[in-house]
Amino acid sequence: MSLRSHLSRLLRTQVHSVRKKSVHSVAVIGAPFSQGQKRKGVECGPAAVREAGLIKRLSDLGCHLKDFGDLNFTPVPKDDLYNNLIVNPRSVGLANQELAEVVSRAVSGGYSCVTVGGDHSLAIGTISGHARHCPDLGVIWVDAHADINTPLTTSSGNLHGQPVSFLLRELQDKVPQLPGFSWIKPCISSPSIVYIGLRDVDPPEQQAPLPHLIEKLLFNIDRLGIQKVMEQTFDLLIGKRQRPIHLSFDIDAFDPTLAPATGTPVVGGLTYREGMYITEEIHSTGLLSALDLVEVNPRLAVSEEEAKATASLAVDVIASSFGQTREGGHVVYDQLPTPSSPDESESEERVRI
Amino acid sequence: MSLRSHLSRLLRTQVHSVRKKSVHSVAVIGAPFSQGQKRKGVECGPAAVREAGLIKRLSDLGCHLKDFGDLNFTPVPKDDLYNNLIVNPRSVGLANQELAEVVSRAVSGGYSCVTVGGDHSLAIGTISGHARHCPDLGVIWVDAHADINTPLTTSSGNLHGQPVSFLLRELQDKVPQLPGFSWIKPCISSPSIVYIGLRDVDPPEQQAPLPHLIEKLLFNIDRLGIQKVMEQTFDLLIGKRQRPIHLSFDIDAFDPTLAPATGTPVVGGLTYREGMYITEEIHSTGLLSALDLVEVNPRLAVSEEEAKATASLAVDVIASSFGQTREGGHVVYDQLPTPSSPDESESEERVRI
Amino acid sequence: MSLRSHLSRLLRTQVHSVRKKSVHSVAVIGAPFSQGQKRKGVECGPAAVREAGLIKRLSDLGCHLKDFGDLNFTPVPKDDLYNNLIVNPRSVGLANQELAEVVSRAVSGGYSCVTVGGDHSLAIGTISGHARHCPDLGVIWVDAHADINTPLTTSSGNLHGQPVSFLLRELQDKVPQLPGFSWIKPCISSPSIVYIGLRDVDPPEQQAPLPHLIEKLLFNIDRLGIQKVMEQTFDLLIGKRQRPIHLSFDIDAFDPTLAPATGTPVVGGLTYREGMYITEEIHSTGLLSALDLVEVNPRLAVSEEEAKATASLAVDVIASSFGQTREGGHVVYDQLPTPSSPDESESEERVRI
Repeated sequence: MSLRSHLSRLLRTQVHSVRKKSVHSVAVIGAPFSQGQKRKGVECGPAAVREAGLIKRLSDLGCHLKDFGDLNFTPVPKDDLYNNLIVNPRSVGLANQELAEVVSRAVSGGYSCVTVGGDHSLAIGTISGHARHCPDLGVIWVDAHADINTPLTTSSGNLHGQPVSFLLRELQDKVPQLPGFSWIKPCISSPSIVYIGLRDVDPPEQQAPLPHLIEKLLFNIDRLGIQKVMEQTFDLLIGKRQRPIHLSFDIDAFDPTLAPATGTPVVGGLTYREGMYITEEIHSTGLLSALDLVEVNPRLAVSEEEAKATASLAVDVIASSFGQTREGGHVVYDQLPTPSSPDESESEERVRI
Repeated sequence: MSLRSHLSRLLRTQVHSVRKKSVHSVAVIGAPFSQGQKRKGVECGPAAVREAGLIKRLSDLGCHLKDFGDLNFTPVPKDDLYNNLIVNPRSVGLANQELAEVVSRAVSGGYSCVTVGGDHSLAIGTISGHARHCPDLGVIWVDAHADINTPLTTSSGNLHGQPVSFLLRELQDKVPQLPGFSWIKPCISSPSIVYIGLRDVDPPEQQAPLPHLIEKLLFNIDRLGIQKVMEQTFDLLIGKRQRPIHLSFDIDAFDPTLAPATGTPVVGGLTYREGMYITEEIHSTGLLSALDLVEVNPRLAVSEEEAKATASLAVDVIASSFGQTREGGHVVYDQLPTPSSPDESESEERVRI
Repeated sequence: MSLRSHLSRLLRTQVHSVRKKSVHSVAVIGAPFSQGQKRKGVECGPAAVREAGLIKRLSDLGCHLKDFGDLNFTPVPKDDLYNNLIVNPRSVGLANQELAEVVSRAVSGGYSCVTVGGDHSLAIGTISGHARHCPDLGVIWVDAHADINTPLTTSSGNLHGQPVSFLLRELQDKVPQLPGFSWIKPCISSPSIVYIGLRDVDPPEQQAPLPHLIEKLLFNIDRLGIQKVMEQTFDLLIGKRQRPIHLSFDIDAFDPTLAPATGTPVVGGLTYREGMYITEEIHSTGLLSALDLVEVNPRLAVSEEEAKATASLAVDVIASSFGQTREGGHVVYDQLPTPSSPDESESEERVRI
């Protein structure tokens, strides 16, 4: 499935020196965190995505890179259920507090911040941290799920299905304060978030103050095609004014045939081309300020090939968000090389025959 | 391939109680019949589709269900070829006569009638039975094949490739009366049937009095996208007046990578999302009155996984036709739960830390 | 993957005699040539495509066929690297000179010329040969790659990535004369070539005088859908005047899940339906004059099934370019057969019961 040929990769590498250097300064943060849900393995996401070549790909694109490595989240020794249901609230709260700090530092240092998860509960930290320096940010949430359950509507108890509920101002009085969550301040309003790729939304989630967005964007890909969906997205988020974009990309937005190594796959997902189109368009706005790539779980792959295909897809999403295009990079020299003495080597060759 | 996660199914199940109850009364009829063609196994379709969770899924959607179980068709002891070519004419005739009776009873009892086949010759019975109480019905035929050969144009002799020819008024003088078929009265006119998904049409079939429809709707998915195809479908069938819809869905309309366990797969079929879009749109008309889901043949699967994926897809088609949506069901309570005493359990929790 | 059922093939065969005979005279040339690149096996392409039924399928479509068999290219005993980089220049030059001769002869004899490769360096010969009799031809290049590197920009040294550079008038002073290439005269101008399916373009290639075309057509499939892309293609190439079309189709234009047996697969390719749509539309212009089908490499398949699926897809591309449609061929008799003595055999049958 990892089908860009060795040769083609080689070509890409060798020619990168002639590419127009990107102005992106990119911070990479590994967030090997899995306690927002119950399946083992999603903490291995950062290692898998790194092994699939993330750093080299971004570097080849001309990004100025700062690698924060993989964070060591402080463990919480005793982390009882909240309300007999919510799993690991203190661990999720603390890890996100720590993550928010790092993201905030990176963004304030002028970096676009790439966080590689880990589960999607991490968006609590990345968006909170991002918002400290960019209170006006807009969120594009690409996911099969809306992740907007509250601790009172969830039936699984997993916090990776709830991050949006803690971030939205409109839901403030619907969300109890969980242990470990007191540091969180809701930092976005519902008109500042757009969903793409949703296809498995729990009924209570539809009660959240986003119905017009969900309704408008849920089936628009089938109805209008991906090009119009992106147009609508940008109209809603940045149509009136420029603002930093936070892209929170759950790999399960893709069809499970493309991204099988993830915890909650749902049939009927994005095609590869739709995913690349989304990220290419976001890149071309010039406004991408932070990106989460979450829910790659190599331990849920049936084969090594599946694990690698999923991680490689994650790298494609990130690289495409920072300027990799399917038509290659852009060259800066003004003209193609011209044969210096057109028949010199030619004549020499002829002699040899 | 059966990729809706266990967790997601669980969620779906647990929350169904808060969904808006559907007004659908749905009759389910299993039709384990395979004599309209020669391959073994399509008689196992009803069992496979039931095992994939049909009844529970419809019930979770709030449908009021009446399960007729799997019909026991009267066997025909000696059923010679008609015209040295047509296979099992008396068996096909009699089974459909019996099926028509049951469908007619169900529809007249106020039920939307789901028939799970079995091969597509069964549409002779379902549409005939349906038309007894709804003579004004319109048919949406979703299939890779037009199934409109006559006994005089077929080269295979299989009656599952001919049902439409017996039902169309315009073909009445082109169709000889087969043994066992005398009870059949052509009950639909060509403007009352629309094809979607056709891609392997035998030349003689194009001679039938539907050329404008076939021509207009055959490639429109590639040409216009599924959204416009459905718009055109409804314009043609119910644009001028409301009428009951009979959806006759052959699982081979889907791409063989999605529905491998079927008798006559054809490359280049519907995507999962196109299939769901079709059925969601039909549901939203509020006019669906009967549905056939045919040609699931678990014995033709290469693996257990393929058989299950095909049956599960069949359940998705049916559930989606009766209100399952990719954005979940609709909730009836007016607001999200609010933390009763916001910090109560929270304080308690804090003590424990 | 080769999923058109045996039965359906059978039907197609048996009914072909009633189809409207096509006026196409088609020459088939096998070009088992692989020296435009370094991987073994692409010289087996013609045999694989023939074994997948090419001749029978074209014949069933009513084409008047002339089969040139597989060419025996004159070997070049000592073929050193040019410029320490370019591989097999003399072999590529000579084979294409010989191929151009055959293509030219076929086209001047009134045939539409199908060349089955072999690698894509063969387009040097087919387009040169075609242009001798049709200097006004327009090229539709369906490929994942632009194949427009020059010997001075290539990093691989493979000539199958460079054919367009030798054919374009605008690049004449950018291309050194390779040994064996002196016979080549650039014969097309950049407004006469349209690319479809590109998604892995090397940066130096973007410097070629086609930027507006590449830019306009690269993502149009995702952006506009395949129907509008074909409209634009025809507007550009034949909008102002009718001219012969040369279709140069690299099988790697398709997604690698459909065409795995090829040398440089790239994720995110054409779907089956898009590929068929392209060729159906080209057929319907009535202007197709030559077709290359290249880069089927059965030795790179992981399984026999993969090799067969890729070869079968190649046959579909060619057959679809010459009139095979997903709705079947067109019948010439004016009406369906009518039961001669409606109840004769019927009565007889009844007696038997």
